[in-house]
Amino acid sequence: MPTRPAVSADLDTIIELIHGLAEYEREPDAVKLDRAELADHLFGPRPFAEVLIAETAAGASAGFALFFHNYSTWEGRPGIYLEDLFVRPELRGQGFGKALLAAIARIARERKCARFEWAVLDWNQPSIDFYRALGAVPMDEWTTYRVAGDALAALANEPLRPV
Amino acid sequence: MPTRPAVSADLDTIIELIHGLAEYEREPDAVKLDRAELADHLFGPRPFAEVLIAETAAGASAGFALFFHNYSTWEGRPGIYLEDLFVRPELRGQGFGKALLAAIARIARERKCARFEWAVLDWNQPSIDFYRALGAVPMDEWTTYRVAGDALAALANEPLRPV
Repeated sequence: MPTRPAVSADLDTIIELIHGLAEYEREPDAVKLDRAELADHLFGPRPFAEVLIAETAAGASAGFALFFHNYSTWEGRPGIYLEDLFVRPELRGQGFGKALLAAIARIARERKCARFEWAVLDWNQPSIDFYRALGAVPMDEWTTYRVAGDALAALANEPLRPV
Repeated sequence: MPTRPAVSADLDTIIELIHGLAEYEREPDAVKLDRAELADHLFGPRPFAEVLIAETAAGASAGFALFFHNYSTWEGRPGIYLEDLFVRPELRGQGFGKALLAAIARIARERKCARFEWAVLDWNQPSIDFYRALGAVPMDEWTTYRVAGDALAALANEPLRPV
């Protein structure tokens, strides 16, 4: 079976693959995760995300996908957001990436999701070509804005009452 | 108190505000939600999203925010994604939008979230200016891709094995 849901015994494999993805995205030092916290976030009582593992015929890990549910009020239905997709560079071109995407698409259909979405770095043309060939459409009109760190703390300290 | 978590008795107010947002985003016919399903998705055993309501001093609904958790593997922490933010047009400029964003920022800090994010339509310059003034940074390098409808069904039917 080429893909399967991850279990807690896969934790170190998942961490290794996350680091592999960060290297591919040219941000090798960006990964700050704590092993025990990740275990709790993925396999604890309130999971924040789900992971699929792609495996070779010999049972070695070839890649992973990490996803969670989002929600569309206009559709009135949940969707799936794919946060991470990674196949080991030496195992590319064999269909593991497509198998992971197809497995998540099946989960999306089973759970009556309206959409399956993910974000792509604009310079990553090989991935963009691959996703377009699968029927994915760019949401060109939208830009994501992020508040983090000191700006998040400052926003949290805004006065409670309308000003 | 200007903002509060929504309860199931707010369902019709939430639906009215969702339609108001769709009109503002120039997509008045885009809302397809089913009332009973939305009730289940927001207030059932497996909530997909949370809603805050902003209220006037007289207790009338002024606007709403709908959000859910995402997850960053690099941070190893959940984040908050704001799906909808809307203030009734006749009540703008009084701080309701900022009060909703600040309330979610506080929730993000309480829950040890790394980030608070949302997407903005590129033509919506007043909102972009407002968000930038709050310290929000555009994720300009990223574009979201979406698979839905027939393309999602086709992807789900891809062969299970690597090809």
